[in-house]
Amino acid sequence: MALSPYQQLEDEFRRLHAFRGALAILRWDAAVVMPSGSADVRGEQLAALETECHALLTSPKVSRLIERAQASADSLEDWQIANLREMRRQRDHSLAMPNALISRLAKATARAEVHWAEARRNRRYADVAPFLAEVVALTRDRAALLGQHLGLDPYDALLDEYSPGVLTGALDPLFKTLGRRLPSMVQESLTLQMAAPPLPIEGRFAPSRQRALCVEAMKALGFPFDRGRLDESEHSFTEGITGDLRVTTHFEPADPFHGLLAALHETGHALYQLGLPPEWRDQPVGRSRGLALEESQSLLLEMCVVRSRPFLTFLKPMIDRHLGGSGAAWEVDNLYRLLTRVHASPLRIDADELTYLAHVLLRCDLERQLISGKLASADLSEAWNSLAEVRLGIRPQSDAEGVLQDDHWAVGQFAYFPAHALGGLIAMQLWEAIRNEVEDLDGAIARGDFSTLNQWLRTNVHGVGARSDVQALVKDATGHPLSAQPALRYLEAKYLEAR
Amino acid sequence: MALSPYQQLEDEFRRLHAFRGALAILRWDAAVVMPSGSADVRGEQLAALETECHALLTSPKVSRLIERAQASADSLEDWQIANLREMRRQRDHSLAMPNALISRLAKATARAEVHWAEARRNRRYADVAPFLAEVVALTRDRAALLGQHLGLDPYDALLDEYSPGVLTGALDPLFKTLGRRLPSMVQESLTLQMAAPPLPIEGRFAPSRQRALCVEAMKALGFPFDRGRLDESEHSFTEGITGDLRVTTHFEPADPFHGLLAALHETGHALYQLGLPPEWRDQPVGRSRGLALEESQSLLLEMCVVRSRPFLTFLKPMIDRHLGGSGAAWEVDNLYRLLTRVHASPLRIDADELTYLAHVLLRCDLERQLISGKLASADLSEAWNSLAEVRLGIRPQSDAEGVLQDDHWAVGQFAYFPAHALGGLIAMQLWEAIRNEVEDLDGAIARGDFSTLNQWLRTNVHGVGARSDVQALVKDATGHPLSAQPALRYLEAKYLEAR
Repeated sequence: MALSPYQQLEDEFRRLHAFRGALAILRWDAAVVMPSGSADVRGEQLAALETECHALLTSPKVSRLIERAQASADSLEDWQIANLREMRRQRDHSLAMPNALISRLAKATARAEVHWAEARRNRRYADVAPFLAEVVALTRDRAALLGQHLGLDPYDALLDEYSPGVLTGALDPLFKTLGRRLPSMVQESLTLQMAAPPLPIEGRFAPSRQRALCVEAMKALGFPFDRGRLDESEHSFTEGITGDLRVTTHFEPADPFHGLLAALHETGHALYQLGLPPEWRDQPVGRSRGLALEESQSLLLEMCVVRSRPFLTFLKPMIDRHLGGSGAAWEVDNLYRLLTRVHASPLRIDADELTYLAHVLLRCDLERQLISGKLASADLSEAWNSLAEVRLGIRPQSDAEGVLQDDHWAVGQFAYFPAHALGGLIAMQLWEAIRNEVEDLDGAIARGDFSTLNQWLRTNVHGVGARSDVQALVKDATGHPLSAQPALRYLEAKYLEAR
Repeated sequence: MALSPYQQLEDEFRRLHAFRGALAILRWDAAVVMPSGSADVRGEQLAALETECHALLTSPKVSRLIERAQASADSLEDWQIANLREMRRQRDHSLAMPNALISRLAKATARAEVHWAEARRNRRYADVAPFLAEVVALTRDRAALLGQHLGLDPYDALLDEYSPGVLTGALDPLFKTLGRRLPSMVQESLTLQMAAPPLPIEGRFAPSRQRALCVEAMKALGFPFDRGRLDESEHSFTEGITGDLRVTTHFEPADPFHGLLAALHETGHALYQLGLPPEWRDQPVGRSRGLALEESQSLLLEMCVVRSRPFLTFLKPMIDRHLGGSGAAWEVDNLYRLLTRVHASPLRIDADELTYLAHVLLRCDLERQLISGKLASADLSEAWNSLAEVRLGIRPQSDAEGVLQDDHWAVGQFAYFPAHALGGLIAMQLWEAIRNEVEDLDGAIARGDFSTLNQWLRTNVHGVGARSDVQALVKDATGHPLSAQPALRYLEAKYLEAR
């Protein structure tokens, strides 16, 4: 029997899924085990496969099949209809990136990246401003094209890449509410914490011991080592696909919690991938709902679960066994205070759960203005410094401490920081719902029983895949529309408590 | 300016090269680092990429371009003409494998492989005979199709896969000459060696120390660790492409030379890849001249260079440093006798340089008769046992020691053993030529100076790529047509010398 247009589409996207899985392994390999001199041949392999994926999505055949499948959508089930919608969405995102624009953006971002690094060494933003301006101009073109294809305003079209279905109109009030309260909350928590600073951890801890602790904690949380790995790389990340998930971290001998927290943050990403609907695993509707939701899962695990007294109570015997520390600094209460310490710093890289949000919101504000044209690239440094004073209470001493600290815009990543801020908000809203619904969650976590937590997330978040958009998913999961209130409640309870 | 048909072909084959490089990394990953439960998703990725390669080679577009490039071949340079010939050869080999045949062979070999393993456990060849018969029948179809495309007899067409340009008519006299002399040579050497058996190596040697020895020896031989790796896997192999070469070995704690010899055998493969003409590295003419020639390079390094007194003299201080052995067993002369010891065994896996050839020639005989139809699969066990008595002087006690010991035929690998026998002959013929041309080669090797050896191989073998066929390459390199005489001279000198 001949395959229906919809079935033919499934075959095409199955092929796409296999190519993307191959790309994931090649990227993991490049970051973890590839010989130092092999970047050029790897670049050729990645480019050939990426070109193949783009060609598949933009082929006349796929577009024709989508139209034909749409015409007979009455015969499809709900999941299939959602799958068809996601196929169309991926096709639209690819069509909006014609080869000429891909190539111009690739060149402009390559130039901007080099000049960004140099400007940072010279602590002088002006050196890179014209190159960033070029990237911004091309990104505006991209946003306009994408908006046309998706029927969205340009910036909303960019948002759709990482946070499908979320519009500026929905984000603005959330970020405003949060942004208004954050600066005073940071100051209050700093004052409170200064009154009782935690004892520092001293000593050096072999990576092999840190790794053993990570593996044991990851296993307890449900990471499947028969279908996944933990390795080391310069920056931690999660790669691969469900069935072959690869988490990396980076161990600091003097800070045994740096590598652990990074590994458990990534474990949140991995558990999300692991919980996606298995029967749709090689189709668009069975894949991740985008960066914002992914980040909500890693933040929920790292921030809400791991950086908590119950989890540290559970972890304490493992810490003792693998790291061998003893004394007051290693007591659960001190570890908790260390892992929830608020840092006043102009650098995002030094940030904690609370100030991280302030850092990210600052970037959200500025990139909106850059893309809309309200702010010229030439004026970005001054705008950054002024806003940092308001948002963080700190005026950077140089561009290296200010606008030049992150190169995301230089490499063309816009709508990336909003997805991170949104991810944080979603994490805290989901966490509030879980705490309301699951009885004695703290007790279960302290005992190392993560089954109800994982089950809740699998049912309400992971297993939904890309069937709903982000806002609908959060509303279905928590019973409430996206809101900043759960975040404020959570942060106030955690960071303004008397110590 | 529009690209010429030939230039368009180069672009297509460049893409093919990138896909094959990606496949190589995915296969390496599966053998070395992949989680145990991830074979299913990896299988999907490999299949998708292999299908893509096959589709590219068999596309009407490529065939049309080949015809058009051929029509204007006057305007091409010599290397380009050779490249076009190799493109056509790859296309023909792919066209001769229509999807229906690929799929029938895949199913038949999968079945035969399973039953082979079971038959081996039961030591009863009859259990697998009908399944092997199916594979043989399909391989005959394949050989006939391939022969049509290449204008060759069916078995010659199979030979062409691994030993391009070598015909049965050329192989037969070589194998006959060698096969006539081998049995008596094996008996004579066994008698000679029995008179002065080497002292055994005793102790256990940590894999980390064995690895350090391998790395130092590989570096001395010219393996580039900035564009290559050494890892461990169950069976040793070389994967990757020039620019990212990955060698594996397997360490036995009780036998410190097992892993070393395997690693240096594979280093021979890697050095061949490394010496291929760099300006043609992503085109067919710049790739390997096939398995027989590859194997000649690994055998030349492992057998002729490494298993020699000069090399062991060079290696001795490294062995002492990394393995820490002392006493008479660790003296160069004893190590040499250990590494050139002849073993009387019905199993190929136990074979040494000398008996290995006898084992392989036995298989060459039998598979010729299977494919021609002279020998029925049902009669293979008896034919094996009789021939083993003639060739090896040993009658297997069971099918597990006889026909069932290798599963190559079950998985459809025909013309594979002839390529190995030929590889051995080529190695010894090249080695004789090198010794005649390079002054004081033994002295250079004993000093760890491999530059003249590597330079000779690069000029006469590696750098030729796939520009010549195997016979022409050997004749150009040595000044003589392929012959079994250099092998007989080498083996007699090495294995019939008084000890």
